[in-house]
Order: sequence, then C-alpha cells, then structure tokens
Amino acid sequence: MTCGVGVIGAGTVGGGVIHTLLNNGDAIHDKSGQTVRLRHVADLNLDPLKEFDLTGVTVSTEAKALISDPRVSVVCELIGGVEPAKTFILEALNAGKHVVTANKMLLALHAPELNEAAVRNRVELRYEAAVAGTIPIIKALREGLSANHIRAIHGIMNGTCNYILTRMSEEGLAFEDVLQQAMDQGFAETPPDLDIEGHDTAHKCAILASLAYSTPVRLDDLYVEGITGITGQDVAYTREMGYQVKLLAIIRQVNGAIEARVHPTLVPDEHLLAAVKREFNAIYVESDIADATLYYGRGAGKLPTASAVVADIVDIARRDGAPAPEPFRYVHDLPVREMGLLRGQYYLRVVTEDKPGVLGTVCAILGHHGVSIASCTQKDEHGASPVNVVLMTHETTEADVKAALAEIDALENTAEATHLIRVL
Amino acid sequence: MTCGVGVIGAGTVGGGVIHTLLNNGDAIHDKSGQTVRLRHVADLNLDPLKEFDLTGVTVSTEAKALISDPRVSVVCELIGGVEPAKTFILEALNAGKHVVTANKMLLALHAPELNEAAVRNRVELRYEAAVAGTIPIIKALREGLSANHIRAIHGIMNGTCNYILTRMSEEGLAFEDVLQQAMDQGFAETPPDLDIEGHDTAHKCAILASLAYSTPVRLDDLYVEGITGITGQDVAYTREMGYQVKLLAIIRQVNGAIEARVHPTLVPDEHLLAAVKREFNAIYVESDIADATLYYGRGAGKLPTASAVVADIVDIARRDGAPAPEPFRYVHDLPVREMGLLRGQYYLRVVTEDKPGVLGTVCAILGHHGVSIASCTQKDEHGASPVNVVLMTHETTEADVKAALAEIDALENTAEATHLIRVL
Repeated sequence: MTCGVGVIGAGTVGGGVIHTLLNNGDAIHDKSGQTVRLRHVADLNLDPLKEFDLTGVTVSTEAKALISDPRVSVVCELIGGVEPAKTFILEALNAGKHVVTANKMLLALHAPELNEAAVRNRVELRYEAAVAGTIPIIKALREGLSANHIRAIHGIMNGTCNYILTRMSEEGLAFEDVLQQAMDQGFAETPPDLDIEGHDTAHKCAILASLAYSTPVRLDDLYVEGITGITGQDVAYTREMGYQVKLLAIIRQVNGAIEARVHPTLVPDEHLLAAVKREFNAIYVESDIADATLYYGRGAGKLPTASAVVADIVDIARRDGAPAPEPFRYVHDLPVREMGLLRGQYYLRVVTEDKPGVLGTVCAILGHHGVSIASCTQKDEHGASPVNVVLMTHETTEADVKAALAEIDALENTAEATHLIRVL
Repeated sequence: MTCGVGVIGAGTVGGGVIHTLLNNGDAIHDKSGQTVRLRHVADLNLDPLKEFDLTGVTVSTEAKALISDPRVSVVCELIGGVEPAKTFILEALNAGKHVVTANKMLLALHAPELNEAAVRNRVELRYEAAVAGTIPIIKALREGLSANHIRAIHGIMNGTCNYILTRMSEEGLAFEDVLQQAMDQGFAETPPDLDIEGHDTAHKCAILASLAYSTPVRLDDLYVEGITGITGQDVAYTREMGYQVKLLAIIRQVNGAIEARVHPTLVPDEHLLAAVKREFNAIYVESDIADATLYYGRGAGKLPTASAVVADIVDIARRDGAPAPEPFRYVHDLPVREMGLLRGQYYLRVVTEDKPGVLGTVCAILGHHGVSIASCTQKDEHGASPVNVVLMTHETTEADVKAALAEIDALENTAEATHLIRVL
C-alpha cells in the first residue's frame, strides 16, 4: 500500500523531509516494504521548492487544502512555534489524519491536549524529531526500554550550547567569542537566547520527563539555567579537576516526585557524556533492567531532523491501515520536586578581595550551613585582586548551598556573585 | 488484551526474562498499555525456577508442550545453539506463534530459512537481543534509520574482548593475564574461544550486515580475526600514537559489494568508540540522512539481554492481534568483498635482529609493494635484540601489505611474524 504524505512548512526541516521522500524511497522500501509518497506541500513561501522536481505533488499556500487532501494520510507539521502549528495539528487529527511533528515548543506546552485529540480520533501523533533530532530517544523510551523502570536520564540536547562549551574547553576561548563566531557562521540562531538560556533544552526535558514517567509535566515547573554564566575560567579550572562542563537535562524519579531540570553540569572525564563534543547530542539513560544505555547523534540540522520525521512516517505506513497502537497515556500525575531538595556536589568560585581572614569567613559560613568542603584552592598567585577561591563541596543540598551563598555574596569583600556549577 | 508468553530455556537470559515479566508488568503497562503475562516455562533443568513465584504458570520439561499451549502466543527461544533451538523455533512459527530469540549463532547461520518460515506463517520473528544485548540496534536499523542508506557500521559487540582490551590499555597488563582473571571471575566464558577468536562478533556482524543492506550474508564469507594476537606491547605503542585497540565489526557497501569483517582495529582517541570501555558495547552507524549515530549499552548479561527480549514481546503485544507488519526481506544479493581489496592505514610491528641494513631492507620491501610509510620508530633503545620496528603506513591495500609482509617475514633476521593492526 502507498502512504501519502503532506508537508506543512517548506523551511529547513521541511526541505529535508521533501528531499528524503523524493530521493530515498528505495531505502525506505528496502527496510520496511512500504511505499511512501509526497503528495502535498503547503507553505506561505514557495520559493524554497524550486530546487525540487515536484511532479505529481500538489503545492498550496493554504494548510487547510493540504489537510483536506484525500491523498494525504499523514500530515507533517514543520513550521514550528505554537500558532498556527497547533491549530493545523488539531485540524489534521480531527480530520482523521496521522500527524508527525518536530515542534518541541508546542509539545512542551500543549502535549496533553494534542495527545487527547489523537486518542479521540484514533490516529497517531508522533514527534521523534522534536527531541534530539535524529536520535531515536522517544522510540527507545517507549519501545526499546518498554520493560524498564527509568532511573535517570542525562541528556546533552542542545547542539549550540555543546558546540560553544566544547570550543571553550578545547581552545580556551571566552563564551562571548565562541557565541559570536557561531552566530557569524550560522551554527547558532540569531538571537541565540532560546538555546543559550536553556529553554530549548527545557522543552525537550519536559517531553522526555513526561514520556519516561507517564505523567504530565508543566514546563513552568522546570528549573532552567543556561550557559551564559559559564566563564572561560570556570571551564579551565574544572577541566584541571577532571571535568567537562555540559548543559544537561536531568530527569529522575525521587520519592514519588520527579526531578526535571536543565543546568550546566560538571561531567567527569571518564563519563561517556564527556566525550560528546561540538554540535552532537547524546542521551544517557539508566534503567532497572537494561542498566545504562546511551543514544548519540545530531540534534538538529536539515537532514538529521528529516531522518527522524520520515522514520515516524514509515512507522505509520508500516501498520498498513491497521488501528493505531495503544497511544501514550498519562498514567500518573507526579509533582516536580523542589530544587532546594536536590542533593549533590557543587563547584563554587568565590571572587573576593585578597584580605586576611576572608577565606576563613567563607569557609565558616559554608560550615555553618552544613556544607562540607572537599577541596579548596586559591587560584591567583600573582598578587592580583580580587582573587578566585575555587571550592568543591561534599554532597550537600541545594537549599544549604544557596543559603550559604546568599551570606557569602553579601560580604563586603566579595567582588561578584559566586559562580556555582552542579556536579554530575 | 493480554499477551501470553512462553519461555523455552530457564538459564541466565531465560531467568532474566522471567524476572522481568513477573516484576515489571507495571512499567510495561505504563509505556505500552499492554498486559504481558508469563504463561509457560520449559526447560530440561527446572532447578533455576525455584527462586520465582510461578503461580498460574505452566512448567514443562517439553518444549513441544509449551509451543502447543493455547495460552502462549509468543514463544521465546532462549536455549542458544543451533539444535534443538532451530527445530523449536520452526515448530513455533509453523504453529502460528510469534517467536522472540536471542540466538545469534542460529540467526547468523540460518536466518533466511527462519525468516521464510515467519513470512509464510504471517507471524513475527524478532531478535533484538541477538545483537549487542540491550542496545536497540535492530530497531534502529529497521525503524529509526528507515529513511537512510547505510554508509558504514562500526561496532564493539563483544563485552569480553572489550573488557580485556580496556584493562590491557589502562593497566598495562598482558592479554593472558587479563583473560585468566576474567575467566576466574566469571566475566569470560570458559573456554573463551568464541569470544576472543572473534566468532561471536562475526555472528552479530553477519546479522547486522544482512539487515543494513537487505541481503543474505554467509557467515563463511566474513573475514574474522580475534584479539589473541594483540600483545601488551602493541597496546602500549599504539596508545602512545593516540589510538585504542578495539575489536570491531565493520560493515560497509563498496561498489555493489559489502564489506563485512571482524578484526582488532586502532580507533583514534577522539572517536567516540575509543571511549567505550570495559564490558560495554557500542555501535556507530553512518548513513546518508541521519549522518553519524551511536548506540551504547550492555551487550550481554541476564537482565540487559532480557530487556531487549521483553521489548520485542511488547512490540508484538502492541499490535493487539493486527497482522504482522511487512517482514524483513532479502531485496538484494550482494557479494562480500574480497579482503585483499581493502584500503586503509596499517600499524605494523616488525620484530627483527638489530643488524645494519635491516631497517633499510624492510622499508625497501614495503616500497617495492607500493606501501608508503607515514612513520617509523625503532622502539627498543637499551641494546636489546631482537628489536621492535613500529611502522604506520599511509593508505594502501590489504593485498599489498600482505604481499610485503610475506617477504619481510621470510627475511633471515625477522624474529617473529610481523604484527599487523588495521587503522579505522
């Protein structure tokens, strides 16, 4: 049987999907026995379609025309953003069409409503490409690890941040310099805020947390910290200590609540995630039966994202009209755990005037809040002032560290807000 | 609907599957909406079952009784080896039961016959656990990468070999010493030949090559070289040059033929496969749309293997009685490429008496065969004899290197067969 596909949005990812459907039908047929045909493309701007031979493909400037096209059984929403993407997806689902989307922001905000519409209409809503591009992490969580209770997920899921952090580590560059170069070369979006402030990773974190624990997750409940506060000094100091700074999404279940948070994290050099460099993404999953697994690939880009979109289409085609399988359901409703309860080790860099007694005062404040110190080094030895005092704590709680830092940062001699990076 | 499962073989993996089905029904139901129930276990030795509460589960010493049990719709073959496993699987398929197996040797030898029986009976034959244990590589090749032409696969797929090579590299130990310790501690099978001679990896290589290129692959056509010839010296010398020795399965398509080979390979430190340590497995796949992806996890072990077996069962259950999807088919019939045609770089260690002119003779022979030298170091400087001459070639063909080595090894001063390791 032939599966007819409509693509809404002929931008970067849409172009990749069109390219793949037009050129790789032989690979799809070899692997699945299915014939998948591009039937309809809709976009307000049709210019990018000039490079393709679209013989037999309807082209519209109206998404509604595509959704109601009887030759289209799978609608791909690839315009991104909340509206009109949400309206198009709901219209397609309500018209009995399967939907494939790469829209992480929309899913992070409205997954329950979209899932419900898919269930009600007995069609599929698939979104492998929305999380970590080409990496089949949704398939892994829903299918490959279906026998497992998930213990923890640690993901590098933003290529721009990982690219910046890799170059800072390998070349000793400053954050601003790498960011500027990345924007100049088109590696980073302009403006880059969604990436470097951690929100893009947070969208993916919310989607994965929801899948891993079958629970709705409100994006607003996530702790989100980007990489804009990471300095070349912190990268260099922590590298000396055997760590790589990575922006991680961290998901785990603790005492009936879930942790779902995004922040820069010190990953020990021996950990496989430390070896994930430049724009690549990777997701490290720990679970009770499979133990540790890791999935690595490109988290963005025209063709890698298209690979995941088309894989979803082929999975739908493979069912050959049989009813959609049991859809994803929210079986639980778990709260997101307060950040203050987090336990772990902390890297702290206190920037202070080099005066007698200052180090003692800092250590006394930490001790007073129950924060025990594993190592302490005063970094600058050439009479510079202020000086950097680099501390590594033993395991402690976020609340205690934050309370101690509030006092330390209020000291007369403290020159700037203390730099904090959590340790994996 | 409830899916009834029968498990033939209550050994290590069978015990893991029984444990998972009895204990993780909630995880399975959360992720898939399916109820999967263990209905029947068959083994000649029922002792290992004592640890389980098998209320409601039939226990037999006859696989035939399990296969004909009407409550069993999915038969798991977990006894390994060719016979009687093959007979049991064919009987189950012919009885209209879906089959899940972890039997790599059987599949490497008889996949076409088994696949044909599944197609004929319109049931599924699944074997995710047969290749790299818990890693969902078959799902990745068939589903996640369904839109892709596969360019190359490089896999670390034998945990025993990777464990031995890791300890040789990190602790400077000799092959024999690590092997003995691994056997003493139960990490390595006794006898270890199937692992260390590369045959276990070859079984998985044949299965993946077949899936990647939709072609039958004869196990006998594979070039297979294990790690028994790898010495501590070679590990140390190549480590200095920035490489890790890994036993790789390498699969690629070249000019209408496939390469499918297993041998120790020098992996550059910067490559992610170099960071895969100890008993872990990983498979690095390059393809035209997704680009590079990597899948990592435990390649063996009771529970990790069970995770993959149960994932296959759940995928079958998810279809809820709908017809099996289009099965895997051999669309092509590609020959396996002759090893002599291989092009690449080679590490060579020539062991020779330290006599004037010897080095010149060795280099002249290589040059005469068109093998160009990228670097050459005489390693032993304390007057020891014989000495090690370590050479790295530029890209050349296997045939030329082998022809040159035949001459070099026949020289009067050559003390032992030249050590050769291919470079990734």
